Amino acid sequence: MSTEFNLSFVQGLTVREKAELVTGKDFWFTAENIENDIPKIMVTDGPSGLRKQASSADALGLNQSVEAIAFPSSALMASSFNVDMLYQLGQNLGTASRAENVSVLLGPGINIKRSPLAGRNFEYFSEDPYLTGELGSAYVKGVQSQGVGVSVKHFAANNREDQRFTSSSNVDERALREIYLLAFEKIVKEAHPATLMCSYNAINGVLNSQNYRLLTEILRNEWGYTGVVMSDWGAVADNIASLKAGLDLEMPGNGAYSIDRIVSAVQNGQLEESKLDISVLRVLALVEKFRVSEDDSTDYDKNNQHEFARKAAEDSIALLKNDDDVLPIKQTEKIALIGELAQNPRYQGGGSSHVNAYKVVTPHEVASNSDYNVTYTAGYSLSEEKGNLDLEQQAESIAELSDKIIFFAGVPEQDESEGFDKKTIDLPENQVNLIQKLSAINPNIIVVLQNGSAVATPWRNKVKAIVETYLAGEAVGEATWNILTGQTNPSGKLAETFPEKIEDTPAYGTFNASVDEENYHEGIFVGYRHYDLKRKEVAFPFGHGLSYTDFKYDDLEIVANTKKHVTGKIKITNVGSIYGKETAQIYIQNLESRVEKPRQELKAFVKVGLNPGESKTVEFFLDRRSFAWYNVKKSIWQVDQGDYNLKIGSSSRDIRLEKTVSLEMGTTNNRPISGDTYISEIINRDGLHESLVASGLQTAIESISASDSNRELMENLPLRAIIMIGANVDQVNKFIELANN
Amino acid sequence: MSTEFNLSFVQGLTVREKAELVTGKDFWFTAENIENDIPKIMVTDGPSGLRKQASSADALGLNQSVEAIAFPSSALMASSFNVDMLYQLGQNLGTASRAENVSVLLGPGINIKRSPLAGRNFEYFSEDPYLTGELGSAYVKGVQSQGVGVSVKHFAANNREDQRFTSSSNVDERALREIYLLAFEKIVKEAHPATLMCSYNAINGVLNSQNYRLLTEILRNEWGYTGVVMSDWGAVADNIASLKAGLDLEMPGNGAYSIDRIVSAVQNGQLEESKLDISVLRVLALVEKFRVSEDDSTDYDKNNQHEFARKAAEDSIALLKNDDDVLPIKQTEKIALIGELAQNPRYQGGGSSHVNAYKVVTPHEVASNSDYNVTYTAGYSLSEEKGNLDLEQQAESIAELSDKIIFFAGVPEQDESEGFDKKTIDLPENQVNLIQKLSAINPNIIVVLQNGSAVATPWRNKVKAIVETYLAGEAVGEATWNILTGQTNPSGKLAETFPEKIEDTPAYGTFNASVDEENYHEGIFVGYRHYDLKRKEVAFPFGHGLSYTDFKYDDLEIVANTKKHVTGKIKITNVGSIYGKETAQIYIQNLESRVEKPRQELKAFVKVGLNPGESKTVEFFLDRRSFAWYNVKKSIWQVDQGDYNLKIGSSSRDIRLEKTVSLEMGTTNNRPISGDTYISEIINRDGLHESLVASGLQTAIESISASDSNRELMENLPLRAIIMIGANVDQVNKFIELANN
Repeated sequence: MSTEFNLSFVQGLTVREKAELVTGKDFWFTAENIENDIPKIMVTDGPSGLRKQASSADALGLNQSVEAIAFPSSALMASSFNVDMLYQLGQNLGTASRAENVSVLLGPGINIKRSPLAGRNFEYFSEDPYLTGELGSAYVKGVQSQGVGVSVKHFAANNREDQRFTSSSNVDERALREIYLLAFEKIVKEAHPATLMCSYNAINGVLNSQNYRLLTEILRNEWGYTGVVMSDWGAVADNIASLKAGLDLEMPGNGAYSIDRIVSAVQNGQLEESKLDISVLRVLALVEKFRVSEDDSTDYDKNNQHEFARKAAEDSIALLKNDDDVLPIKQTEKIALIGELAQNPRYQGGGSSHVNAYKVVTPHEVASNSDYNVTYTAGYSLSEEKGNLDLEQQAESIAELSDKIIFFAGVPEQDESEGFDKKTIDLPENQVNLIQKLSAINPNIIVVLQNGSAVATPWRNKVKAIVETYLAGEAVGEATWNILTGQTNPSGKLAETFPEKIEDTPAYGTFNASVDEENYHEGIFVGYRHYDLKRKEVAFPFGHGLSYTDFKYDDLEIVANTKKHVTGKIKITNVGSIYGKETAQIYIQNLESRVEKPRQELKAFVKVGLNPGESKTVEFFLDRRSFAWYNVKKSIWQVDQGDYNLKIGSSSRDIRLEKTVSLEMGTTNNRPISGDTYISEIINRDGLHESLVASGLQTAIESISASDSNRELMENLPLRAIIMIGANVDQVNKFIELANN
Repeated sequence: MSTEFNLSFVQGLTVREKAELVTGKDFWFTAENIENDIPKIMVTDGPSGLRKQASSADALGLNQSVEAIAFPSSALMASSFNVDMLYQLGQNLGTASRAENVSVLLGPGINIKRSPLAGRNFEYFSEDPYLTGELGSAYVKGVQSQGVGVSVKHFAANNREDQRFTSSSNVDERALREIYLLAFEKIVKEAHPATLMCSYNAINGVLNSQNYRLLTEILRNEWGYTGVVMSDWGAVADNIASLKAGLDLEMPGNGAYSIDRIVSAVQNGQLEESKLDISVLRVLALVEKFRVSEDDSTDYDKNNQHEFARKAAEDSIALLKNDDDVLPIKQTEKIALIGELAQNPRYQGGGSSHVNAYKVVTPHEVASNSDYNVTYTAGYSLSEEKGNLDLEQQAESIAELSDKIIFFAGVPEQDESEGFDKKTIDLPENQVNLIQKLSAINPNIIVVLQNGSAVATPWRNKVKAIVETYLAGEAVGEATWNILTGQTNPSGKLAETFPEKIEDTPAYGTFNASVDEENYHEGIFVGYRHYDLKRKEVAFPFGHGLSYTDFKYDDLEIVANTKKHVTGKIKITNVGSIYGKETAQIYIQNLESRVEKPRQELKAFVKVGLNPGESKTVEFFLDRRSFAWYNVKKSIWQVDQGDYNLKIGSSSRDIRLEKTVSLEMGTTNNRPISGDTYISEIINRDGLHESLVASGLQTAIESISASDSNRELMENLPLRAIIMIGANVDQVNKFIELANN
């Protein structure tokens, strides 16, 4: 093949040929054009493992796909707080894709977890955009390091599944920029993803697949993105409008219907051919870069990848609670293993991310084959909501004779999948009831959770330990067992808040309340930003995760504070008796702002492994953006000059070190004096005395600020209303002129 | 005087004369023009009593005003839920105004209580717009029945005091219409107020005093308002922009500066003279209607008005708690009267509503002169935050020897006034500590509250009774005593929710967080709409108020259900042993909506007096608007046809009767079938079978709806994406065509 797909090549194609190239050939392939030597390329779901189907397949996963490793879901992977691990995950996925002749892997999903009810949260990383951006960036770099493209999805503000094809996400510009677009922006700029996938929904009334502002003005003009934008499957409602807006590739493509429409649109002048050319060129650049010369599908080491899946899960599983050091379990103890999920685990999500797993190893299997003293019973049935008395009685009798109970609990698959939202964050009644019953018999209960998204844990005071494994991938059994037995010391940290109850969540009451619209009332106050703002108690905070050892934080120092960045360091010491890893989290609090600000925001994190007694000093880096907020009026990322709190925590609510830093960078909030300037500001600002005297305003201001009881009134009286208390307009105008010169 | 102030008269004036007339002469007078026989008229604060100052006075209340009755603040009056009482209040104020040669009374204030921290809440009625509109309307009719005009204020969305001159209330259109404008609309349409007062703040970035949409498009074009719009004192930043926007009268007026600007603006074409003429005409119409021919100031019966102030307070004071029937107190009991507020009561608000009271009667005075066995001690000092050990010990020793303690608690005047917002809703530390201390000595504590706005009551479980008297006016002592002794049976109901804590309030965390903007994140979910939506516990719910007797609710019946209204009736019975009054509240819940809706909204209320054992059947009337929500896209008040719950409560959280009514009026939510129609809707809608078969779509739909596990996916798959599961575009288009015909 010798063709170079440049613009003149594109211009040499017929309009129909061009139209074909921007219309997916079928579910998984782009169009080929043999005459012009343009090959097709294959795209394949999904973020946590390859779901390569036969080309006749449909998008709903009804057809079996090739065997592949089911890696941990993104919900779990995010809890690793480990960019290296995400990069390696990407490498593994890239290797598998390449081996299977897949050019573009459809992932990662990086939408923000706005509500724990959102059905697809398991496929996303976090409620925090910074964390999402860091992890997503590493993932993308990892995949693309193998010569395979990604599709970063779902662009953007696709935060519910119900009516996802039509629902408008009504979100204010600041929240859009700071929360919902931030990770996309970071990944586009840092990892240069081959494609982005445009989501189904609308933003503020404009369907994303026809959203010029989103797909062109922001994505391309502002962020400089040069790759392909493809549609989510079926997201295109009007392919002409989509092309005009900047969407390059309709997937799966409506065949002749779509192609004919493009041809007519060009012919009747509705669509500029040059616009079409640009999309064709982008698609061809993609094809050229990621084409597979011939069917060179190879084998790859699946056992090796399975091992990686285990390792990744172990680095991510979060120990939420561990009273009386009930974990790790010991070989000398009699262990009751209870819960159908131990034998029939939930280890991956439903929908397009569903993988035909290579080798699922269940917790029950691992436990049974171990040299631990374990007795298993189901306890409840996953296919039922109500308790089964027989199963429960068996569980109770085993519990009675055991030293400890490991109870596998979680959300049944039928309640949580792509395509619809959840109705509850509670565990099924039969599981909760059984936990309560068992707790009356034996207090040493360890709950292992399998779930796609935060659950309520009103039963948590009845149990001694909780291990959050989310959907842990096909090595679920090995990974879980290694954590439970202490073979691996847990180091996962929650990438989302576990609220006390659904009523406490930011979108409660309005989430899915409107069929056609989703109003983002909470604005930037999503996740911990909400719980912190409203000072709400939570079950387990963002960033929380325990270890079998303990860590001490010391010596927070600012190393550099320049016009471009702030760097600092801290010393972390493993003060326990076994090896362990800790993720230190750096939160920033703006103390200067004139606008609404979260009480703290994650802006850096460092994961470090430490032997017993070992100390390491770790650095953190805070760039300009770490301190910025999006000024909607000026369309800029603004940094307020002044004081910021740096808060170093083992979780968002376990802050160990704190220091105030006065920024060198940024702009001051002092604005020119005007009629709108409040008198208190004038009194407090330096250098105005002379102008006050010269304008004759000094007397009036002195007289009113003399009495303490006027203080609060003065705070709220601007210059232009000072005539209310005896000054005159001329004095005011003269003062304004003098003060600003 | 014979002039008729018509348009040709106005056109005969010079531009300067016109400019003078739209510029307030000074603080309290409009301009006069002797040559043209145009008198000046006087305007005077405020809503709860006349604050007539010398014309040399300023707006900040530094000058003493004439003696007048201090009526209960609006916060208390609203708790009457009694439109007749508000009408009579208006009559009394009108009488006083007339007697004092005042043409326009600057009130009522009808802003919505969005946060209990808002400094001016005492001057406003409620968190509920319907209740505010009903009460405000009655007040306006009452004043204007005496030939005196009102100024309904502060128009609009003026819901904080901090930076009130410049802060922008950023509020979505639906919340604006349904919550913040509703009472203004109702009063304009039903009570025809002589003037409206334009507030200081901006709405969505546009200063209200320059807001054409607010002052002209909505107020005049939509609502048909023909009266004068005047500025709040000092609210005009640019009098030309204001005139253009529809503001007629600048107050207090910047003298020659303002007048010169108008003259120049007309001369240089910046301001159309015809526009100016209209404002002049409106001002002259006001002058003509409410002028006082000569100084005919008369006496009016102040003692009579004092009596009304007492009666109004007694009809409004709300009994929030009364365990063990600790109230009313008895003559046989030894009563400890504790709290400086008993002797030095807060009975009115600070700022422009502050009245030079005619005759303040304190609770201490009334108690001392009564034949009850009362011992008073201050207990704490209002001027201090910290406890005073001497005062506390005196209180403790009296408490020990008493049967019951009446503890006067409240918010000191320095913490609550026009002009600045509050920092807390807690009572001062010394009061709360003393309540705790006394409760350890004597459990029979009755707390009487004096405060402008909802307070937190974390101490409420330590006391047996709570009597909310707000700022009760100059008859505070008599009214409070009559309630405490049972001479009057309390019948007030809270017109605002008392939250558990400030963190629970809808705007918590963002209220006043931005200097320049106030973002109304909660939208329509203000007050009980918020607590209900979020299912939050509250201390005392909206509409709550106990009686010394009990009421039974029966026989909810729908009397009429037409295309225009719904009427119903209920039977209320006094099942106790003394006379009492009860306010039945009618809440509506929309069960059909496709949009966000409050779980319930107050849409009618009826107050009824009943002798022991007596029953009365009362009717309620629900007009079309009762069922409507503001459809922003269509700019209409939309009624959804379908089912509504009618909930009849003794409070918003004490619903006694409930019935579902299926409306005759309104429009159905069935929309034309389109590509955006979800498959589940097609399956559920009648009459589509034939079109499905004819289009060939029936097979695809049947196959996917066959499996129960697909059900939720189908809910969320629209027609235009049905190609994802095997149908084709032509079938879809054919079906859409057939289905809509």
